[in-house]
Amino acid sequence: MTELKLYISPGSCSRASHIALAETGLPYTVSRVKFAEGEQRSEAYLKINPKGRVPALVTDKGVLTETVALLAYIAALAPAKALAPLDDPFRFAEMQAFNAYLASTVHVNHAHGRRGARWANEETSIADMKQKVPQTMRDCFALIENGYLTGPYVLGSTYSVADAYLFVMTGWLKEDIGSLDDFPRAKAHYDLIAGRPAVQQVLAEEQAA
Amino acid sequence: MTELKLYISPGSCSRASHIALAETGLPYTVSRVKFAEGEQRSEAYLKINPKGRVPALVTDKGVLTETVALLAYIAALAPAKALAPLDDPFRFAEMQAFNAYLASTVHVNHAHGRRGARWANEETSIADMKQKVPQTMRDCFALIENGYLTGPYVLGSTYSVADAYLFVMTGWLKEDIGSLDDFPRAKAHYDLIAGRPAVQQVLAEEQAA
Repeated sequence: MTELKLYISPGSCSRASHIALAETGLPYTVSRVKFAEGEQRSEAYLKINPKGRVPALVTDKGVLTETVALLAYIAALAPAKALAPLDDPFRFAEMQAFNAYLASTVHVNHAHGRRGARWANEETSIADMKQKVPQTMRDCFALIENGYLTGPYVLGSTYSVADAYLFVMTGWLKEDIGSLDDFPRAKAHYDLIAGRPAVQQVLAEEQAA
Repeated sequence: MTELKLYISPGSCSRASHIALAETGLPYTVSRVKFAEGEQRSEAYLKINPKGRVPALVTDKGVLTETVALLAYIAALAPAKALAPLDDPFRFAEMQAFNAYLASTVHVNHAHGRRGARWANEETSIADMKQKVPQTMRDCFALIENGYLTGPYVLGSTYSVADAYLFVMTGWLKEDIGSLDDFPRAKAHYDLIAGRPAVQQVLAEEQAA
C-alpha cells in the first residue's frame, strides 16, 4: 500500500483529518499547500484536487476529499482503534450528521468572515457578512452546547473522529468571538481533546510543514 | 420497528432522502413542514429537529438529520437494494465525498439566492449575494460536468443515493440559470433519474403532502 499523504493548510479544516490520521497510528506524510502563495489554484494542485481546497488524501486507490467523507474513511482504515461506530448504522449516522452539520453550517458560517468573496462581490457586502459571523457562530454553538454535546465526547462516553472535527470548529469559534467563556461545555471538550497526544503531534507537524 | 417518518418540504433538499426512501421499498410516511407558515420554527417541530430545517427522519432509535448522513443510513436499511457501496470503504468514501460537496458547497451556493439573510443583514448585501448565485452554481456544475460525473450515474455504472441528491441539485441549477443546455451530461443524468418510478412516486407524494 502506498503511504497515505494528506494535503493540509495549518489551522484549516484539514486539521481534523490530520488528527484522525494521527489517531490511527498508521504511517502517513503531510504536504503543505501554500495558500498565501495561491498554491491551491496551481495547475499541479488542481490535478490532485480540482476544487482547489484542502484537505485531500492520496491513497493507493485514488484521492479523497471533503472532511465528512475523510473522517469516516480514516476511521475505517484502523477499525481496532474504534474511531467511529462503524458497525452500528444508527450511531454511525448520528456521527455523520454531526460532522455534516459542522461542514455545511458551522464551517460555512465561519467562512463568511474571510471568504465572503465566494458569495458576493461588493466590499460593503463582504463587510456585512464579516460582522455577522460572531452571531451565526454563537447560534451554532448554542445548539451544540445545549443539545448535541452530551459530553465528555461528541458521542457521549467514547472518543470518535467527530471530536477531532469539533475541536477544530471550537478553535474557530474562539477566533470569531474572542473567548469560550459563554460555552463551558464546548470549552471543556476543547481542552480535553487538546490534551490528546495525537493532537499535540499534529500541531507540531503543522508547524514543521 | 416504528414506521419511518420523513419530515419534508416540497422541492427542498428533503427530496433526496425521500427518493432514497422510496427506492428502498420500505414502508414510510411523510409529513410536510409548512415553511410558508414558519412551521419549521414552531415549538413542536424544534423538538423534532432543533435546527429548524428539513429533512428529519424519525426512526425507532431516534431522529436523524443532514442529507449526507440520511442518504447513507437509508441505503444501509435496505442492503439488498444496493443503493450505496456499503462494503467498499473507498467507494463509499467517494460517494460520501460527492454528497458532502453537494451539501457544503452546491446547496450553500444556491441558498445565497433565497436565504442570504442567514449570512448578512443589509438589503444591498442580500441582493449582491443573489446576483452571484448563477455564477457560483455554474462553477460547481462545471466541476461536476467535466470531472465527477462520469455517467451514466454518479458512481459510474451503478445507481446510488448520490444520484437522487444530484437530481435535486441539478433541478436547482435549472432554477438558478434557466436552462441546462450548457451542461449536457448533468441534463442527461437529470432526465435519466427523473424517469425512475421512485422519483415519480416522490413527486406525487410531495404534491399530496
